[in-house]
Amino acid sequence: MTRDTRSQNTDRLDVDLALFGALGDLALRKLFPALYQLDREGLMPADTRVLGLARHELAVSDFRDKVSAALKKRVKPKEQDAESMARFLERIDYAKVDFAQPDDYQAVRAWREGSPRPMVVYLSVPAKIYGDICRNLEASDSLDDESRVVVEKPIGYDLVSSQEINDVIGEVFPESRIYRIDHYLGKETVQNLIALRFANPLFGTQWNQNHISHVEITVAEQVGIEGRWGYFDQAGQLRDMVQNHLLQLLCLTAMDPPSNLDADSIRDEKVKVLKALKPFTHESLDRDVVRGQYTAGTSAGQAVPGYLEEEGANTDSHTETFVAMKTEVSNWRWAGVPFYLRTGKRLPDKLSQIVIHFRQQPHYIFDPDQRSLAANKLVIRLQPEEGIALQVLTKDAGLDKGMRLRTGPLHLDFNSAFPKTRIPDAYERLLLEVMKGQQYLFVRRDEIEYAWRWCDQLIAGWEDRGTPPRRYPAGSWGPVASIAMITQDGRSWYEDY
Amino acid sequence: MTRDTRSQNTDRLDVDLALFGALGDLALRKLFPALYQLDREGLMPADTRVLGLARHELAVSDFRDKVSAALKKRVKPKEQDAESMARFLERIDYAKVDFAQPDDYQAVRAWREGSPRPMVVYLSVPAKIYGDICRNLEASDSLDDESRVVVEKPIGYDLVSSQEINDVIGEVFPESRIYRIDHYLGKETVQNLIALRFANPLFGTQWNQNHISHVEITVAEQVGIEGRWGYFDQAGQLRDMVQNHLLQLLCLTAMDPPSNLDADSIRDEKVKVLKALKPFTHESLDRDVVRGQYTAGTSAGQAVPGYLEEEGANTDSHTETFVAMKTEVSNWRWAGVPFYLRTGKRLPDKLSQIVIHFRQQPHYIFDPDQRSLAANKLVIRLQPEEGIALQVLTKDAGLDKGMRLRTGPLHLDFNSAFPKTRIPDAYERLLLEVMKGQQYLFVRRDEIEYAWRWCDQLIAGWEDRGTPPRRYPAGSWGPVASIAMITQDGRSWYEDY
Repeated sequence: MTRDTRSQNTDRLDVDLALFGALGDLALRKLFPALYQLDREGLMPADTRVLGLARHELAVSDFRDKVSAALKKRVKPKEQDAESMARFLERIDYAKVDFAQPDDYQAVRAWREGSPRPMVVYLSVPAKIYGDICRNLEASDSLDDESRVVVEKPIGYDLVSSQEINDVIGEVFPESRIYRIDHYLGKETVQNLIALRFANPLFGTQWNQNHISHVEITVAEQVGIEGRWGYFDQAGQLRDMVQNHLLQLLCLTAMDPPSNLDADSIRDEKVKVLKALKPFTHESLDRDVVRGQYTAGTSAGQAVPGYLEEEGANTDSHTETFVAMKTEVSNWRWAGVPFYLRTGKRLPDKLSQIVIHFRQQPHYIFDPDQRSLAANKLVIRLQPEEGIALQVLTKDAGLDKGMRLRTGPLHLDFNSAFPKTRIPDAYERLLLEVMKGQQYLFVRRDEIEYAWRWCDQLIAGWEDRGTPPRRYPAGSWGPVASIAMITQDGRSWYEDY
Repeated sequence: MTRDTRSQNTDRLDVDLALFGALGDLALRKLFPALYQLDREGLMPADTRVLGLARHELAVSDFRDKVSAALKKRVKPKEQDAESMARFLERIDYAKVDFAQPDDYQAVRAWREGSPRPMVVYLSVPAKIYGDICRNLEASDSLDDESRVVVEKPIGYDLVSSQEINDVIGEVFPESRIYRIDHYLGKETVQNLIALRFANPLFGTQWNQNHISHVEITVAEQVGIEGRWGYFDQAGQLRDMVQNHLLQLLCLTAMDPPSNLDADSIRDEKVKVLKALKPFTHESLDRDVVRGQYTAGTSAGQAVPGYLEEEGANTDSHTETFVAMKTEVSNWRWAGVPFYLRTGKRLPDKLSQIVIHFRQQPHYIFDPDQRSLAANKLVIRLQPEEGIALQVLTKDAGLDKGMRLRTGPLHLDFNSAFPKTRIPDAYERLLLEVMKGQQYLFVRRDEIEYAWRWCDQLIAGWEDRGTPPRRYPAGSWGPVASIAMITQDGRSWYEDY
């Protein structure tokens, strides 16, 4: 595997984008709308082109019609601009390709003929055909020595399978040109973690075990399985959400300050966090991890079936749809600070947030009954609305209040803080960074692997124990045991939804 | 002088309030409206009574009419409630008194006859008659051993004259029952300094020279002399504003955390700050203090005369209407941290605020041109609107911004944070605390005296040097030298009005 330290092509935006899986759900729902927005905002150079690739025989004009229909459905009406749309559709070509068939790649080669632009290959297809595509692209001489490849989760099912996938891609592309997407990293608020932590002395100097008592990371889904029972049941919530999104949030929250903002400086620090994650023992597994599986209940006012009653369900499944855990980053910065993570399906709300709980001070001089209030919390919310709130204590207003305290948020809501700025979708940011050749928002191979190592060990522990998941009704915040897990530490999940 | 440690009467609200100077501007404009609001909010027990005292012969009904007219003028229409007003006026009596005439105090004694309530004596009269009033009250046997006395600034003209005034009051009232008003201490936001500093670990742990680079305190008046040239010219801005308001704000900002919220615990800490204020040398006086006097200019769009052209002006006056200074609190917490103070008349806006500038961190990883942004500021605003804002750095939103920083306020505006709560006027809070017998918002004798010591020494330096004040046009932010004073330190007055 070649290993460049940096792409030579930083900040050069014009590319040839070959999108495999161009008729897939992700492409039509997310990728084409994101590309359109980049074009509309003037961030796509005039000669950038897009080639859609899929198994179906389809005329270019029919493919453009499909993209056009997708844009009309997915882009807000006020952001649909006829001129931009026409210009964007003009960039698009289509080729039918049987991924395993080398000859079919001549279409790609022909499309690339004479192009001075680096190629970006976006693999929006199952991982098992990555190898075919990469090898066939190389064999057909479609690639150049600046070609980049973009892949999505899941990258494997465990350490070994992820290594196989990474090996296959790595045969053709060096690490410096592999862009592994975790779309959470494309969210403004997630990037804001970097600004918040490293540009604000007030937070930066307190970001450690001396000043922080514990950290909560919640990624709650309101949806259930959404017709993909078979796929999900093979994975479970730990593999599907914790191994990637939650651990990425944990890394950005916990990492030591990088010396600079280079991709590898940041990713080196993230890897250090993953390596420092405390492994679970049998004892801590029983005490600090709660698996759950939803039963019938209500969601958004509707009765909904339980996980084992969903279409296609195997009624014996022990797969978890919820997981809560208390873990720790065993290093100088974080020793003794619990990180409480939880994620689940069919929870009451769609909610993603990180809550930093600052320690109380040892001495307290206000009314004794308010002592528990006297701590600060920094709430970084990713969903449903992106925003930051700092919970501070002020004097309660009003004559009859004397020196009573009151907790109130100092808040920054992105929509009101940046009223004239559209908050871009994560994929817009990520695609832009791919075009620029900037890797800092993408996941490096060793990050994936250390994340799997830790998850594998956790899963192996579960399998050893054989404990079935605890039930929780759809529409609740998970098994009661997940509440008990944190309350037994004298704390509670932050509730200000 | 007797010295009780605490009033025995804490939280007993019912009092007999004798208000000397009841026809004066302060009484009608501020005190009666404040008392009315306390009554309207149910904070004035049924048997609390008010006796207005002044030199004029006036029937009680005529006095009530005057009070009623004042309330109608000063209280917001929606807070004028016929029933509350009638109840409040019923509490009011009036007696004519020649302050120096012992016999006239029989009216007070008669009013007090048989009352079980402690008496509160409010001296809204010139300091030179405090002695007469206190002695005559005592001689007439109108006082009880819980009687309190309330006095207003100015308490003297310098240390010696303030001691004379305090001695006169102290002959009759022990320190524990003397309530010296600095109305700034009645403002919600000023009390909020205590909550902000001591209930929020995030701020509390950083409130020192390790984390704070400098502090600004600005009290800007838009008004000029307002017909009291003769009075003001004897004092000047240092005596009129710095000796009391600005030093009180400085004390609350800089004091070490008190062990508890008792009046003397807080005031002990404030006195420590005043004692630690660095005296000026001739050298530092020239370098770090700027006196100013306004010349003709514009205020709120109107042409206005200069200080020496005001009605009644002595055209030779060297009295300052503006003062800016850089000082330091020489103790472990603050050594090396400049406190920049400024106050003046005929400035562009009415503005009172404290700005805490946190230090930058030693390492910086964002775009080099934004380095100066990367610091936090806590802005505590008292006027025109009370509010708190924390300036933090976030990632600028928008696709084209990359990892550009943006400074934005996390803010708490009292009017929107407490939408159903009327923000009380400072006098309401202060009068309520007098009724409760709580002294923590009042200024102790030694505070006054240490503040005068420091000011006297500064004034003596000015007189030695004989330097005339620098001119500044009405409607500007003071003499250019006051800008230079801070910019030569590589800083600037915070401007986000």
